[in-house]
Amino acid sequence: MVGEHKATAERRQALRSALIEAADMRIAKDGLSALTARTVASDVGCSVGAIYNVFEDLDGLIMAVNSKTLARLDREIATSLSSVSEDQSPVESLVAIGLAYCRFAAQHPRLWSALFEQGQKTDRVIPDWHMDEHIRLFTHVLTILKELAPEQSDEQTWSQARLMFSAVHGVVSLGMHELFIAVPSDEIEMQVEVLVRATACGLFEN
Amino acid sequence: MVGEHKATAERRQALRSALIEAADMRIAKDGLSALTARTVASDVGCSVGAIYNVFEDLDGLIMAVNSKTLARLDREIATSLSSVSEDQSPVESLVAIGLAYCRFAAQHPRLWSALFEQGQKTDRVIPDWHMDEHIRLFTHVLTILKELAPEQSDEQTWSQARLMFSAVHGVVSLGMHELFIAVPSDEIEMQVEVLVRATACGLFEN
Repeated sequence: MVGEHKATAERRQALRSALIEAADMRIAKDGLSALTARTVASDVGCSVGAIYNVFEDLDGLIMAVNSKTLARLDREIATSLSSVSEDQSPVESLVAIGLAYCRFAAQHPRLWSALFEQGQKTDRVIPDWHMDEHIRLFTHVLTILKELAPEQSDEQTWSQARLMFSAVHGVVSLGMHELFIAVPSDEIEMQVEVLVRATACGLFEN
Repeated sequence: MVGEHKATAERRQALRSALIEAADMRIAKDGLSALTARTVASDVGCSVGAIYNVFEDLDGLIMAVNSKTLARLDREIATSLSSVSEDQSPVESLVAIGLAYCRFAAQHPRLWSALFEQGQKTDRVIPDWHMDEHIRLFTHVLTILKELAPEQSDEQTWSQARLMFSAVHGVVSLGMHELFIAVPSDEIEMQVEVLVRATACGLFEN
């Protein structure tokens, strides 16, 4: 019996991984709006019903893909920070994160976009583990802002992190859609750097 | 014959206005994605085909609604600027525009959102008259930025206007969707003010 349970758990785990992999590739290729249970099931070679043995609903599967995307972004940010030497100003680290964010969005536009699309379309409460993944990403920024203004309350630091993230996101997001009122797509990185420097300067050096 | 032509032109004009009005109300109520030729025709009491006698396609009708929305936003911005006295710093005018933008988005969330959704979903080339309406809105910001840095090239001023707009738009846009990584919706105005002041300070006072 124990052996049987183990085999079932392993099969379940293998199906889970295969579904995440298939959904990840579908979203990367065609975007979140094109994702259906039917296409993912067909990619994996299982029944549509089998998906719901592993995930509560399609949102659960999408959240698992987003979780993978956040882990990727986290690695990119960590790599970008490792290139900033310790004797440089913390502002250089903020710039490095901003540029890593631009590049990630440009390299994985549909996976990146799915991070925000899901939050907008679902009324579902985000589970703590997924919330924690977002918080982990913000930790990079929070640590640097604390260096820039150690006397500030955590609440204030969070406000600034949210504000800087939203501002950078706005430039990247409008720019990638190539609306003519947006920053031209080939200038996004340069302009994000200008924005991060200007905002940091306005917030911390006055 | 002339009288008949005139009557036809007047009927066409009346239908055009009625269609714009109906589409405006539909978008304001249910959002752009819920807009169909059928519902608008039914609201106005005309056939679906009649729409295409007045507008090239549904995109043409949406553009006419967006044009009305831009004119409203333009009036709100002009009103907000009239409350800034001339002896105040130009930065106060930038703050006033930023806050007017926040309030407009909060008061007309779906009409405001439609301005960006259309640009993303259509491949159609935006006609010059509609482009001009966007440029007119930017003129408010461009004039102020020129006051802050008269020595700059027009190109640089445009870059800054696009950048500041995108950053403010990011805060408003993420905040209105109430993603937890965004600025909380009841702090959007306050945070946009912080952002505009910080960015202006970083761009112009150093």
